[in-house]
Amino acid sequence: MDVRIDILTLFPEMFDVFDYSIIGRAREKKILDVNTVDIREYTEDKHRKVDDYPYGGGAGMVMAAQPIVDCIRDIKKLNNGKVIFLGPRGKTFNQDMAKELSKEKELIFLCGHYEGIDERARKYIDMEISLGDFVVTGGESACIPIIDAICRMIPGVLKSDESYMEESFYNGLIEYPQYTRPECFEGYDVPEVLLSGHHENIRKWRRIQSLIITRKNRPDLFRKAELTEEDKKLLKKYRNR
Amino acid sequence: MDVRIDILTLFPEMFDVFDYSIIGRAREKKILDVNTVDIREYTEDKHRKVDDYPYGGGAGMVMAAQPIVDCIRDIKKLNNGKVIFLGPRGKTFNQDMAKELSKEKELIFLCGHYEGIDERARKYIDMEISLGDFVVTGGESACIPIIDAICRMIPGVLKSDESYMEESFYNGLIEYPQYTRPECFEGYDVPEVLLSGHHENIRKWRRIQSLIITRKNRPDLFRKAELTEEDKKLLKKYRNR
Repeated sequence: MDVRIDILTLFPEMFDVFDYSIIGRAREKKILDVNTVDIREYTEDKHRKVDDYPYGGGAGMVMAAQPIVDCIRDIKKLNNGKVIFLGPRGKTFNQDMAKELSKEKELIFLCGHYEGIDERARKYIDMEISLGDFVVTGGESACIPIIDAICRMIPGVLKSDESYMEESFYNGLIEYPQYTRPECFEGYDVPEVLLSGHHENIRKWRRIQSLIITRKNRPDLFRKAELTEEDKKLLKKYRNR
Repeated sequence: MDVRIDILTLFPEMFDVFDYSIIGRAREKKILDVNTVDIREYTEDKHRKVDDYPYGGGAGMVMAAQPIVDCIRDIKKLNNGKVIFLGPRGKTFNQDMAKELSKEKELIFLCGHYEGIDERARKYIDMEISLGDFVVTGGESACIPIIDAICRMIPGVLKSDESYMEESFYNGLIEYPQYTRPECFEGYDVPEVLLSGHHENIRKWRRIQSLIITRKNRPDLFRKAELTEEDKKLLKKYRNR
C-alpha cells in the first residue's frame, strides 16, 4: 500500500461510498488503504455510551473525551499520520490543501458527531479542517468529499487519461465547456472550432471560455488568478468583438 | 412525505450513507423521501455507454447530454423541484443556502461524473452549486454534505433537544467549547463556570469563547458578524484581563 487512511467514526457503515468509482478502484489496486475504526468500540461505559449531556446545559449531546482519545492512541500504533479533525474552527478546505495532504503516506481522520466533541479531546488533534460555512450532522459527510479530493491527487489513483492537470480549480480558473457526441443535440450544435482539428485555435477558445466563465461566476477567483500576456490579449480581443 | 429529493447519478449505491444517523431517521419517520435515479437507465446507446470523448480532444471522458436530459424529463413527471447541478460554476454552498433550500418541498440533484457533462445538458439545469474550491471525482461526494446540511434544517428532522439554534455558523460565529463528564479527564478540568449553575455567567462565558475563537480562527467571519453592545463589552473586559 502506498497510502494508509484511518477514519475514526461512530458510523463506519457510512463509508461504503469509498467502495465505488475512482477511490474504489485505487483500493482494489492496493494503492490506497482506507480503514474505518468504530469509536464506540473504545468506550469504557458499561452501556456502551459515547456521548453525554453538556456541562453548563444546552441542547444536544457531546461526544466524551475517553473513547475518542483511547481510539486515537490505539490507531497511532498502526498509523503514524496527522490526526485531522473535521470541524468549524479549521481552515476551509481547498485544492492546495488537497495537494499537500496527498503527499502524506499516512493520515487519520476523526469525525465528530452530535453537538460536538469534549474540548479536552482536541489536545490529541494535530489539525482541524472545515469543509465550508455550513452545519452538517457529523464529520462523516464532511470527510467524504475531502478524502475524495485528497486521494485523486495521489500518484497512480487517476489513470493517465484522467489527467487532472486541466481540471477546474487546478489552475485557479473554472474549466471550459465540454462537448461530446452527437454534433447536434436537440437543435444545439457543438461550437465549430472544436470540430476544426486546429489544436492552437481549440486551446485559445478553451482558455478564453475559462477566463470569461471565471470572471462572470467567480470574480473572487478571477482576481486571484495570474493572467498571462496571452490571457490579457484574448480578453481584449473578446471585448472588442 | 413532507419533502421529496431525487438524486440523479451514475452511482446510486454511493447514497447508502443516507440510511444512517439523522437523515436515516427522518426517512424512517416519513418526513423525508430521498430517492436515487440511475442515469445509465436512460441511455439510448446499445452498449449502455453514458460518456464519450470530448470534442476538440483532451483528457478524460464527458457525460453525454442525451441520458442526462431524458432522465431529468422523466423525473420531472414525479418531482417538480428545481434541478440543482453540483459543479464549479455555482455559488459556494453555505448555511444561508441550506436554509433557503430546506423550505422547498421538492428538489432534484444532478451529479456529474468524469471530466464533466456536455454543455448542452446545462440548459435543463435551474441552479448550480459548488461545494468549495477543490476537485472531487463526481457530484456524488459533493452532494452528500449538501443534502445533509439542507435536510437537518427541515422542521421535524432534528429532535427538539438537538436544537440547531446554537450551532456553529448558524449565528455567524463558531461555537463555544463543549465539555461533558467526567469533571477531570487525564488532569484537565472542566472550566469552573460550567459547574456553577449560574446561567447568566455560563451564557456570557460561552459568548466570549465564541467571539475569541472566531476572531482567532476565522477573522473573515468575525468581520462580518454583527456584534451587540454586550459583545463589545465582553471583548473589552477580556482584553483588559
